[in-house]
Amino acid sequence: MLKASICTIGDEILIGQVVDTNSSEISRALGSIGIRTSRMVSIGDDSQQILSSLSKELTDNDIVIVTGGLGPTKDDITKAALATLTGSKAYTEHPGQLEMVYKILHSRGLDVLDINRAQALVPDTCEVIVNHCGTAPIMVFRTDGLFGHPATLYAMPGVPYETVNALPDVIEDIRAHHDIGAIFHRNLMVYGYAESALAKKIAPWEDALPEEVHLAYLPNQLTGVRLRLSVYGGTTEHEKSLLEAEIAKLRAILGDAIYSEDDDTLQHVVGKLLKASGKTLSTAESCTGGEISHLITTVPGSSEYYLGSVISYAPSVKREILGVPASTIEEKGVVSAEVAAAMAEGARRITGSDYSVSTTGLAGPGGDGVNPEGTVWVAVSTPRVTKTRKYNFRNDRIRNIERFSASALFFLLNEIKEDLSLNESANETK
Amino acid sequence: MLKASICTIGDEILIGQVVDTNSSEISRALGSIGIRTSRMVSIGDDSQQILSSLSKELTDNDIVIVTGGLGPTKDDITKAALATLTGSKAYTEHPGQLEMVYKILHSRGLDVLDINRAQALVPDTCEVIVNHCGTAPIMVFRTDGLFGHPATLYAMPGVPYETVNALPDVIEDIRAHHDIGAIFHRNLMVYGYAESALAKKIAPWEDALPEEVHLAYLPNQLTGVRLRLSVYGGTTEHEKSLLEAEIAKLRAILGDAIYSEDDDTLQHVVGKLLKASGKTLSTAESCTGGEISHLITTVPGSSEYYLGSVISYAPSVKREILGVPASTIEEKGVVSAEVAAAMAEGARRITGSDYSVSTTGLAGPGGDGVNPEGTVWVAVSTPRVTKTRKYNFRNDRIRNIERFSASALFFLLNEIKEDLSLNESANETK
Repeated sequence: MLKASICTIGDEILIGQVVDTNSSEISRALGSIGIRTSRMVSIGDDSQQILSSLSKELTDNDIVIVTGGLGPTKDDITKAALATLTGSKAYTEHPGQLEMVYKILHSRGLDVLDINRAQALVPDTCEVIVNHCGTAPIMVFRTDGLFGHPATLYAMPGVPYETVNALPDVIEDIRAHHDIGAIFHRNLMVYGYAESALAKKIAPWEDALPEEVHLAYLPNQLTGVRLRLSVYGGTTEHEKSLLEAEIAKLRAILGDAIYSEDDDTLQHVVGKLLKASGKTLSTAESCTGGEISHLITTVPGSSEYYLGSVISYAPSVKREILGVPASTIEEKGVVSAEVAAAMAEGARRITGSDYSVSTTGLAGPGGDGVNPEGTVWVAVSTPRVTKTRKYNFRNDRIRNIERFSASALFFLLNEIKEDLSLNESANETK
Repeated sequence: MLKASICTIGDEILIGQVVDTNSSEISRALGSIGIRTSRMVSIGDDSQQILSSLSKELTDNDIVIVTGGLGPTKDDITKAALATLTGSKAYTEHPGQLEMVYKILHSRGLDVLDINRAQALVPDTCEVIVNHCGTAPIMVFRTDGLFGHPATLYAMPGVPYETVNALPDVIEDIRAHHDIGAIFHRNLMVYGYAESALAKKIAPWEDALPEEVHLAYLPNQLTGVRLRLSVYGGTTEHEKSLLEAEIAKLRAILGDAIYSEDDDTLQHVVGKLLKASGKTLSTAESCTGGEISHLITTVPGSSEYYLGSVISYAPSVKREILGVPASTIEEKGVVSAEVAAAMAEGARRITGSDYSVSTTGLAGPGGDGVNPEGTVWVAVSTPRVTKTRKYNFRNDRIRNIERFSASALFFLLNEIKEDLSLNESANETK
């Protein structure tokens, strides 16, 4: 198995000004082709430190990926250090990257200065992968025996947007130069289980996995747990069918908890269903304060099926805009199944949507005397029925809002599925 | 100046399962007492790697902060490695942490197993700082001459919530054992400038800063740029007045662009103003899809002044709930000053709030033929006036939504300030 090290260069990470998200992006991309990341290192814009750290990483690893330190300003000294490290005698201008420098600056209405043109100059010891999103090229140093074994260093720009966009090219280059074999992945999105509970539930299946199949848990507050199944180094279609067989077993164990086999978020899956069926959606949010609506509208094209929301933070808005009866609020309390149901029904009525979802609860800090902090009632209303469900979480305010919102989306998704399948059976029996 | 290294231990970071946010939290906390972070390293749950990496970091640095690898499961081998590294002969049970183990597990309704009790066992070469948020203690190893100079290692749990909560205790311990002197900080929140434009604007002031005053730029999509001014190693009140004098100069340069001198976000400042004046707020969002409402409601206690929102994604919702005239939409287009103004006025009318803010625009991908992607009209309505403003950004959908929302909050903030000051002068002339 190939070993990699990921190095970030730049004082802005060391002083805590920015969080390093590049390293985890890169290690996931490497993992996806079966390469293990052995270390991650962050160092400052200091030549001596760059030279000594990269020498060590190149000695210990097959692949070293460096991000950062490639901008046009004087702080960025990585390129000179890399030239020294690899014994470069001269710089050469890369025509493809130079063209990109002109293209990018002109598109921003800027002149190309000498300092910009210099971005296309690279040490003669490297090959270039053109960066299509920025002015600094990706440099590839194949160091051969320089560090005692064949090691390759990729130097990428540090802007996360540029790093993420250039990663596929780097991965392709790694694959072109190493015999990694065929790789198959499948991502299953699972909701409703904490990571540890999921691990327990699928332990017998996991213990019986064929040796070639690797499993990773990637949990996320807003999407549940992503289960990544991989087979590395395959040469035939055998591995693919192996994966499919294991996924079939998982489906039998987890059922509807698997909400996507295409790596989609909850809001994407809801959106796809609505788009395909021509149905529309509205929301009515109290304690989630707009987070559900925000999640839904992060999906491009959501205006095709999402009509809107009433965020009814004040009881007066619940009454006057959503039409929740004052008596219901009085008798049952704001945090109740009845108020949640009336909110969801109100949202459908005033927007004219097919479906709606509502929340009313206590994100915290503090409960209301009856319900503890972290309590939420969610209602989903369809043309057939309105259902309610209560959830309890124990997090801080912001995490509670996220958990409330994700739970509501998962509840909504399953009710839409049920309603659509009832529509289908109704059509069949006609 | 003291030098520090931050090490994270755990396969979950190396495989990219989680992004390491602890390291930047820690380096900022260290920076706040004038300690420079020289390196950050992430390594896996591997004894040999832990021993060799920590030996190197303790040799090169005065302070080494380790996070992760302290859970109760078999993967977590950091504690044993630390015992070996510091020549510990035995483990001792720490009564204070044991008490915390019982308290935490009982509060979750769980029994205390041997594996949990073992969390309070520590190598006899360390001192303990009790972790009040988790079962694993913070261990402090004062290695004296073991690595050629006096170096201290702090081992903290890796759960971000626990790390952040224990950091002040660690910082206090560092201060108690090192002669750092008095430290003064001030954070100024600035909106409306890109980091580079801000740097250019305040360059003459920055170049003339007294040597003792340090400046850091901490930019954020949702809050603008945080300018941190610090004086380290002071012994008198002289430094404090030095800071105040520099801040007074900055105020003259930046004016209202400085929206907080108390490290508050836009939504917190808006909330404080509303709370203090007893005024209320509503929103009407189209392209921001609920993000503004979400930001406002992340503030605890926001229900005191925030009534709610209408998210009018569909034109029908703009017309029927917010009362935007169909003719205005027809004649001016959905993305127009007139529609934004009618939305904001509609939100005030139907919720009865004093103030409101609205957005209508194109987060992308794609424009509408007239307006390019990234265009937004924002309106702010007060009892006196409704004002509109147009913004253009060039980001992806999600970043556009964030920029739209932050710009709208900043616009709102300044209009609230103006309205409140007009109220004051009206009262004075009565």
